Amino acid sequence: MSYQAPVKDMLFNIEHLARIEEVAKMPGFEDAGLETAQAVLEECAKFNEGVVAPLNVPGDLNPSSLKDHVVTTTPGFKAAFKQFAEGGWQGLQHPTDFGGQGLPKAIGAACIEMLNSANLSFALCPLLTDGAIEALLTAGSDELKATYLEKLVSGEWTGTMNLTEPQAGSDLALVRTKAEPQPDGTYKVFGTKIFITYGEHDMADNIVHLVLARVAGAPEGVKGISLFVVPKFVLKDDGALGDRNDVYCVSIEHKMGIKASPTAVLQFGDHGGATGYLVGEENRGLEYMFIMMNSARYAVGVQGIAIAERAYQHALAYAKERVQSRPVDGSVKGAATIIHHPDVRRMLMTMRALTEGCRAMALTAAAAYDAAHHHPDAEVRKQNQAFYEFMVPLVKGYSTEMSLEVTDLGVQVHGGMGFIEETGAAQYYRDAKILTIYEGTTAIQANDLVGRKTARDGAQGAKAIAEQIAATEKALTASGTDNAKAVAQRLAAARQAFVDSAEYIAAQSKSDPNAAYAGSVPYLLLAGNLVAGWQLGRALLVAEAAGDDAFMKAKAVTARFYADHILTRAPGLRDAIVEGAASVTALAPEAF
Amino acid sequence: MSYQAPVKDMLFNIEHLARIEEVAKMPGFEDAGLETAQAVLEECAKFNEGVVAPLNVPGDLNPSSLKDHVVTTTPGFKAAFKQFAEGGWQGLQHPTDFGGQGLPKAIGAACIEMLNSANLSFALCPLLTDGAIEALLTAGSDELKATYLEKLVSGEWTGTMNLTEPQAGSDLALVRTKAEPQPDGTYKVFGTKIFITYGEHDMADNIVHLVLARVAGAPEGVKGISLFVVPKFVLKDDGALGDRNDVYCVSIEHKMGIKASPTAVLQFGDHGGATGYLVGEENRGLEYMFIMMNSARYAVGVQGIAIAERAYQHALAYAKERVQSRPVDGSVKGAATIIHHPDVRRMLMTMRALTEGCRAMALTAAAAYDAAHHHPDAEVRKQNQAFYEFMVPLVKGYSTEMSLEVTDLGVQVHGGMGFIEETGAAQYYRDAKILTIYEGTTAIQANDLVGRKTARDGAQGAKAIAEQIAATEKALTASGTDNAKAVAQRLAAARQAFVDSAEYIAAQSKSDPNAAYAGSVPYLLLAGNLVAGWQLGRALLVAEAAGDDAFMKAKAVTARFYADHILTRAPGLRDAIVEGAASVTALAPEAF
Repeated sequence: MSYQAPVKDMLFNIEHLARIEEVAKMPGFEDAGLETAQAVLEECAKFNEGVVAPLNVPGDLNPSSLKDHVVTTTPGFKAAFKQFAEGGWQGLQHPTDFGGQGLPKAIGAACIEMLNSANLSFALCPLLTDGAIEALLTAGSDELKATYLEKLVSGEWTGTMNLTEPQAGSDLALVRTKAEPQPDGTYKVFGTKIFITYGEHDMADNIVHLVLARVAGAPEGVKGISLFVVPKFVLKDDGALGDRNDVYCVSIEHKMGIKASPTAVLQFGDHGGATGYLVGEENRGLEYMFIMMNSARYAVGVQGIAIAERAYQHALAYAKERVQSRPVDGSVKGAATIIHHPDVRRMLMTMRALTEGCRAMALTAAAAYDAAHHHPDAEVRKQNQAFYEFMVPLVKGYSTEMSLEVTDLGVQVHGGMGFIEETGAAQYYRDAKILTIYEGTTAIQANDLVGRKTARDGAQGAKAIAEQIAATEKALTASGTDNAKAVAQRLAAARQAFVDSAEYIAAQSKSDPNAAYAGSVPYLLLAGNLVAGWQLGRALLVAEAAGDDAFMKAKAVTARFYADHILTRAPGLRDAIVEGAASVTALAPEAF
Repeated sequence: MSYQAPVKDMLFNIEHLARIEEVAKMPGFEDAGLETAQAVLEECAKFNEGVVAPLNVPGDLNPSSLKDHVVTTTPGFKAAFKQFAEGGWQGLQHPTDFGGQGLPKAIGAACIEMLNSANLSFALCPLLTDGAIEALLTAGSDELKATYLEKLVSGEWTGTMNLTEPQAGSDLALVRTKAEPQPDGTYKVFGTKIFITYGEHDMADNIVHLVLARVAGAPEGVKGISLFVVPKFVLKDDGALGDRNDVYCVSIEHKMGIKASPTAVLQFGDHGGATGYLVGEENRGLEYMFIMMNSARYAVGVQGIAIAERAYQHALAYAKERVQSRPVDGSVKGAATIIHHPDVRRMLMTMRALTEGCRAMALTAAAAYDAAHHHPDAEVRKQNQAFYEFMVPLVKGYSTEMSLEVTDLGVQVHGGMGFIEETGAAQYYRDAKILTIYEGTTAIQANDLVGRKTARDGAQGAKAIAEQIAATEKALTASGTDNAKAVAQRLAAARQAFVDSAEYIAAQSKSDPNAAYAGSVPYLLLAGNLVAGWQLGRALLVAEAAGDDAFMKAKAVTARFYADHILTRAPGLRDAIVEGAASVTALAPEAF
């Protein structure tokens, strides 16, 4: 099944929700208006449709393999990655100082969606490299930046994030990897890291591992963790590749999905110690790692949207082709294509509405990121930063959870054929399941949303967002169409559910933390549901003002469907959060 | 991960909800009281835990394979199946006249759950045999019964259902397989059937295919379909195995899950015609096939409960063992097992509540089946038959859809380890996805619920069930505990949502069938959600009256959790059904 990038929908969001022309007024983004967006997206679509997407099924059938510490990726990956690098796609959002194109996230995020729709496994390598670049840009010394950034931005080298150890998954306080200072200012790193995506592969000349480790004598827990660069090949003084560093891939995982992307166990220092270079200051590693994590979390949310889009396209094509049964409304004599059946339409509309809603949320969040970094007014930057930070767990948590629903429906639309691997729908179902887990499970995102983003300021930030939503409701009601009024009503009910929940969680967080955290994931799902519906409400305002246009009409129908079928889940979530906390923990651990 | 059959919970349901002692008063069930249930379940648990469960992972790793029309099952399957047959497990619910044990479905269903928890792929073979037995019992001639039933009931031979063809999946009107009458009264069968579970294998001496086909000159559509027995080996006059019949397995599918169960493409008649024997009368095949289907649909619902139970046990064991992070309530100093974290508890409670709720629904329905067939009073039989028929799409549709949620949560509890195949949680996630598809997709179940079970009688049957639920609410309110009152309130809200939806659907079904069917699956989910919650409400009444007992306390907490977290989804579903139908079909097929 071929992939067609939804360029039109992306540009709609970039123009009307992310408001790219406003972004293009900010210093540094002068050339990044709608015209640039269109040109970049069209080029990006061509590359991903033509080069990357055809490798998706082969990657599943013929995953990366390991022999003698060497990982060989799926045939075709290496050549495609070379094209990816040469096309400048790795550097899209990175600074021109290091060879990037310095484009806004509002454009870059759409490109990242395409890459992930085309091939989730392939796209993971650049995703991790982006994280490494962010960390070095923020915390690296000038020397580290000069040494590594250009090669990473150009896609000649790739980056990894080395956090997890067998005993330390979500709980980084338990990290045990050691770093011993050397007289020359470098460190020797010893330890085992697991779940390292593209921790070893054959697509680039060097791999720049960013590694969490403890320096001897550091405080216990997360306050004693430092961040190191550990390159696969140590560099000579002239920057050329030198000796093989003492970090080796000892195994790769046998996974349910994203099989083409090698998930490595890396062994550091079994032959004398791996040479590492401190990033920033000792014991501030977690802080720096969060920079990578925040970039990666947003990107994983985009992965959710991407796989949902691909699953939707696959199911839609089948629904338009498969003939089965007479429509209940008698609109077709005899058996019809299954898209004529109301429940198939309900499934397709659900897939479409969730995907478009989350895309709208992600691109709106991207514009806030751009403003937070480029707007000339400090107060505006601050507001946008706060908004973006609230959005990150929603983009990550909600978009990935919805991708499980969408990929499930994608199989379901296919009936029995969906369960047969050759059909292709099952791969999305298997691939998607990692997205609610890595870069922090949905519960970890929800902890962030509850703790840092809601309880800390007494739900003030949450309520500020609710006020923005109320303003959209007003505009919808004023616009006066049936769709707009109906959407406004659903938004109002969902918003009230959200405010009740935020207030409850803020109130309980100190006095009864179990009660606050018992509702953490439902609260995240409620917030994500609401914000995506809100963005579709904004889209509806644009669409209904646009007159007679097929795309705009479909957008209006999709927004209405979302309100009737997805936003209506919100009040039930509120009841579970606000009135159901006690029953979550009523059964003691030993009573299970 | 070993499996432990939840014998205690099953017996609780059999005693208090299925009321086995009432069943034991019916003619033919005199020996089938609680004591018998306990003895059978304990024996069944031993067999499935010890013999069948250990083959679950090997089946996934080393699936059935095909060579020269011969299917070889996973090593160990054949021997285990022999033990299964020798233990008399195939005949548990079948008439003593043909060598069965004639036990009530209320006991048999629990045994079937165990078998499926132990090994979904293995259990499919007996499941299909049960269907073939039902069809022959109801529609077979005395000669067919005498020839085949004993061997099927004893497990020496197995049965299959041959419905699907490449162009005819949900739409059996499109069946093209032909049957040509022969002078000796037999038929020659020609055609291709796909998706035939255990259509070929090495676990039994003969395979009795029940095949839908058209006799030349039959009416078009479903009214021209007849049912045939086509044995793999034609029998000699003395009943011994004779010639190999002209039905061959030409390929088996490469599936996402249930890999050990061979899903065959069967070719009938390529070498002169497969010998077939008419079941019942010509052109009444669909009617007979529905007998098999109804038996199989209920059983697939039980499969959903079974895989959910297994996923729950797996996740629970991990949650009690994996140490990660400090509990938010400070109840443990330092890192604790993850079951101490509220969101892990919420996931486990969700898994547990859905599983127990659906088990309660299924076993209550089983008791209705028993009464419908064995109660001395015709009026009581009729009422129970109506109730059972309403339950079948709920047991099938809701229990399987919930199993997707439960197996997803099962992976999620494991974090990154869940995505690694060796952990085992991923297999449940992959296996479960077939359950919402085969024996009629969720949409097909929902069509049945909307058309035959709700619209046909103007929602009278639905409202009669609602009245029974209202009576339980009254009893809960009268019992006066906090849990009971809270559950009664949630039940009342969900019941009202159900009645609104049923009335809406009945009202629209003629005038606006698209509107009725647009809400078909949400209506099924709402009805299933409510009925499972109702049964947990009944369980709560028993549990809270039982005094100080750990099992009973846990049951009460689970019922309360279900009410707060699952029943609260019902009003949102009602809004989508009653107020959201138009947006489902507003976008025309050609506008996608």
